[in-house]
Amino acid sequence: MEPRLDLLTVAVPDLDAARRFYVEGLGWTPALDVPGEILFLQVNAGLLLGLFGAADLAADMGVAPEAVVPGGGFTLAHNVVGPDAVRQVVAAAVAAGARVLKEPQPAAFGGFHAYFADPAGVRWEVAHNPGWRVAADGTVHIGAVEG
Amino acid sequence: MEPRLDLLTVAVPDLDAARRFYVEGLGWTPALDVPGEILFLQVNAGLLLGLFGAADLAADMGVAPEAVVPGGGFTLAHNVVGPDAVRQVVAAAVAAGARVLKEPQPAAFGGFHAYFADPAGVRWEVAHNPGWRVAADGTVHIGAVEG
Repeated sequence: MEPRLDLLTVAVPDLDAARRFYVEGLGWTPALDVPGEILFLQVNAGLLLGLFGAADLAADMGVAPEAVVPGGGFTLAHNVVGPDAVRQVVAAAVAAGARVLKEPQPAAFGGFHAYFADPAGVRWEVAHNPGWRVAADGTVHIGAVEG
Repeated sequence: MEPRLDLLTVAVPDLDAARRFYVEGLGWTPALDVPGEILFLQVNAGLLLGLFGAADLAADMGVAPEAVVPGGGFTLAHNVVGPDAVRQVVAAAVAAGARVLKEPQPAAFGGFHAYFADPAGVRWEVAHNPGWRVAADGTVHIGAVEG
């Protein structure tokens, strides 16, 4: 199996609420929007974020609905150029309906970050990480992580 | 906020077990491996998958440990060229320690897919989707989704 992620599918309790946040609130253009079914958003080269009703995802997986936990044990991260940009992105997310989980502040990895939750409880970290570099071929290089 | 995901951080109950599956089992090369702390794997252009102890992630987020649910409401997807490749990838994942959730079979979207869970419970869909096309600039185009 190659080390490649093509699609991150997130189970949401309310697809219309998700659309209001990402499409109307943040202004992201859907890659494909099938109301009542699924909403796909392009979030990197060759990478989609799929927002899918929790019951529909459980059915697709062939598992019981209670086996799919919306807003579970994961976070998404969005890197920006500095502390002011962290604050600006968090403010934009809040304006679109997000809830702040961790106010913008210095981060343990040596940069600056914050966390917010979208209306479905999906957590985004907004970070300025001076040790994060993306090479021309897309390869990510990370500096030393500080305990 | 730009529509861009840089890092997907997954909370795992046992970081060593995660390393055994992804690095030793699947043979993926870490972008950064800090034993006892975090394991970063490159999973697309400019995109890392971060495997992080659940308690450490909770501390980083400033939330209670019980607020972080390992293997929660999301799936990762990995696209391949056809049904045989779906079966081969699932077999490779099982050999590395994965558990099959949905055996390889025709999918509702018109292709062929399967689901497995890694040792931490993180769910991967392995799919052949004839309607999924990635353009030269990395933009994803999806054909009509069938009910």
